[in-house]
Amino acid sequence: MENGGVIRWRFGCNDELTKASAITIRGVLNTLMDNLKPEDSRPVIPLGHGDPSSFPCFRTTPLAVDAVCDAVRSAKYNGYGSTVGIPPARSAIAEYLSKDLPYKLSPDDVYLTIGCTQALEVILQVLARPNANILLPRPGFPYYESRAGFCHLEVRHFNLIPERGWEVDLDAVEALADENTAAMVIINPGNPCGNVFSYEHLKKVAETARKLGILVISDEVYDHLTFGNNPFVPMGIFGSIAPIVTVGSISKRWIVPGWRLGWLITNDTNGILKNQGIVDSIKGYLNISSDPATFVQGAIPHILKNTTNEFFTKIVNTLKEAADLCYDRIKDIHCITCPSKPEGSMFVMVKLNLSLLEGIMDDVDFCCKLAEEESVIVLPGVAVGLKNWLRVTFAIEPSSLDDGLRRIKAFYERHAKKQ
Amino acid sequence: MENGGVIRWRFGCNDELTKASAITIRGVLNTLMDNLKPEDSRPVIPLGHGDPSSFPCFRTTPLAVDAVCDAVRSAKYNGYGSTVGIPPARSAIAEYLSKDLPYKLSPDDVYLTIGCTQALEVILQVLARPNANILLPRPGFPYYESRAGFCHLEVRHFNLIPERGWEVDLDAVEALADENTAAMVIINPGNPCGNVFSYEHLKKVAETARKLGILVISDEVYDHLTFGNNPFVPMGIFGSIAPIVTVGSISKRWIVPGWRLGWLITNDTNGILKNQGIVDSIKGYLNISSDPATFVQGAIPHILKNTTNEFFTKIVNTLKEAADLCYDRIKDIHCITCPSKPEGSMFVMVKLNLSLLEGIMDDVDFCCKLAEEESVIVLPGVAVGLKNWLRVTFAIEPSSLDDGLRRIKAFYERHAKKQ
Repeated sequence: MENGGVIRWRFGCNDELTKASAITIRGVLNTLMDNLKPEDSRPVIPLGHGDPSSFPCFRTTPLAVDAVCDAVRSAKYNGYGSTVGIPPARSAIAEYLSKDLPYKLSPDDVYLTIGCTQALEVILQVLARPNANILLPRPGFPYYESRAGFCHLEVRHFNLIPERGWEVDLDAVEALADENTAAMVIINPGNPCGNVFSYEHLKKVAETARKLGILVISDEVYDHLTFGNNPFVPMGIFGSIAPIVTVGSISKRWIVPGWRLGWLITNDTNGILKNQGIVDSIKGYLNISSDPATFVQGAIPHILKNTTNEFFTKIVNTLKEAADLCYDRIKDIHCITCPSKPEGSMFVMVKLNLSLLEGIMDDVDFCCKLAEEESVIVLPGVAVGLKNWLRVTFAIEPSSLDDGLRRIKAFYERHAKKQ
Repeated sequence: MENGGVIRWRFGCNDELTKASAITIRGVLNTLMDNLKPEDSRPVIPLGHGDPSSFPCFRTTPLAVDAVCDAVRSAKYNGYGSTVGIPPARSAIAEYLSKDLPYKLSPDDVYLTIGCTQALEVILQVLARPNANILLPRPGFPYYESRAGFCHLEVRHFNLIPERGWEVDLDAVEALADENTAAMVIINPGNPCGNVFSYEHLKKVAETARKLGILVISDEVYDHLTFGNNPFVPMGIFGSIAPIVTVGSISKRWIVPGWRLGWLITNDTNGILKNQGIVDSIKGYLNISSDPATFVQGAIPHILKNTTNEFFTKIVNTLKEAADLCYDRIKDIHCITCPSKPEGSMFVMVKLNLSLLEGIMDDVDFCCKLAEEESVIVLPGVAVGLKNWLRVTFAIEPSSLDDGLRRIKAFYERHAKKQ
């Protein structure tokens, strides 16, 4: 109301939004970049984020680009799609994923989403009934905490065990679960750890979920990006033991995160998700949500069916070489240690030994000073739930990776505690 | 827990999702389509939805298609963008919209969204603090009710007055508002009414908002699609009277709703939205949300700067001819009347006179039987908040519109009450 010329504006903001978005990887990286010194003429080495699409060696296949252009030019995909995704795209994704499963997915098991991000948003919102809780891995991907917080889904953390190749501490999962536990999350191949779960371990995860009566959300956005002993095994294989919701996208395997095309899959041979109302609830939430661009959906059948193995192999080999280089070089930097060689995704977690360093308080301090002195960006572990660790991305151009690791070594040597 | 072989699954769904998505235009249209008779060999005439992109006369400009293909082929936009939108797109939209404003928007006033849908989602979530309410027009666009319900924002309705060209009943707005009212929504050009607000009326809306201390959300997704006496006036012109959040997109003016590129604009020359925490909250919500495809963002500067007036004029002329045809023909169908000639958007609201019909219960019954007997889809008014009205879309191929209106006439004549 106006009052002597002063208007009292009544509206205000929902404080929970600011809280929920307080820790995001992009936010932490932006803060680090504020520490860069403009007078350093060397290029900035970005070992902090999981998006190598700007590097020539990680350029996507021309086949995918052509498929999108053909779809736009066809004028068949200018309109709205169905809220669950257009039928040819659902069919193509069902067929693509069924190749690795002991049963055939139906197109109705497939929901198209705006990248993997929206798939996570959907399943968390769907599970968020009053008092429900969810079990998340530590270290993990902070988007889960943000979204769960936003929709009032209580978060409980179980550890991944570095000494066991970052396997899930299943005893902790059993100890944390109660009557109100809706689901547990695994990320495989692992972000931030670069591990790949074995068939046997995934089977135990499914059996634990069955015992506890909970859903498994399997984040497979890095699917097929594996280059170690364990091949990629989709969690959906165990959909007859416990209901599995798999989330994925073309973002990482095709190196096109900006195209915003992902999926949510119900792997549920016993119809439990349908019986529990989850399927209707997924459709309900998609009814009031935005969709991925229709022409990208239109391009999906061609992209999934016709991308050559040469392209996939080239990308995986590039990642493997980068992971090897990273692992070897880290051995020479005594203040950081790597508990196991990365076997998948684009990252490795390394432990910071502060006792070997002079005047470095913690992981955030390490990363800020590294940015300031060496123009190298590395993600502090606290952003993924592990204080005094670091997440190092090796998915960048090899020469830059080499340069970045040399600079980290120089940084260490300059800050090493005198014996 | 397993118990004699029977597992009790603990998780369930968030019932609010099913409630929130109960009434959507797509949902109602799908129900109507279930009434179509497969044995009717005539083409279905879709006068129910607002997406003419599949009709040749509404095909988008090749310039926009080329811009998207060029952006994809450049490989510059395969990665993630900034959560608020990439800077060149924000600048281009600021410049494009500033042409119609008495001041210049800054790129920081522009947030890119996944179509207009996500822009609405963002602002409703941002305003949804405990006990807050929002004033919505009746008739209106049901997505507002769905999203507001989902985020616990109380909804109160004011009427649009058919006898006054569907102007806002501002007395009702004043009567409805209280201490907890955050905002009022206008949709201009109007969906579902096809009206266009005058400069004077919009100014009164702004003055009422100022008096009440509330925000105006101006849904301008149909901006510039006007063909009557009132030109399109952006609400942002009055951003110095009251803070305005404008939502829009390329979906309607360029006839590409499937491209999923929209925007949220803060028109707020006095910095009130910033002071009230709204700006930070918008950024916070976008931090935990998905983004529009980066390459569509990349194409936006070229699309906005270089689309020719010939294209815009052609589309508006096509709409005008269709609106005229629709209005004239409706005069000959005595059971429906049109309070005012449509002057914008793609729709007109017509009132159903049930007393002239035999055996038709209400608008839904009318639409179901019309679908069954004539393979014509029209939206029952109840879906947009006005029982026993109909929303007729005239944005389809002229020959189909003609055919559809003839069939509605035949339907009326068959069901007319004997004198």
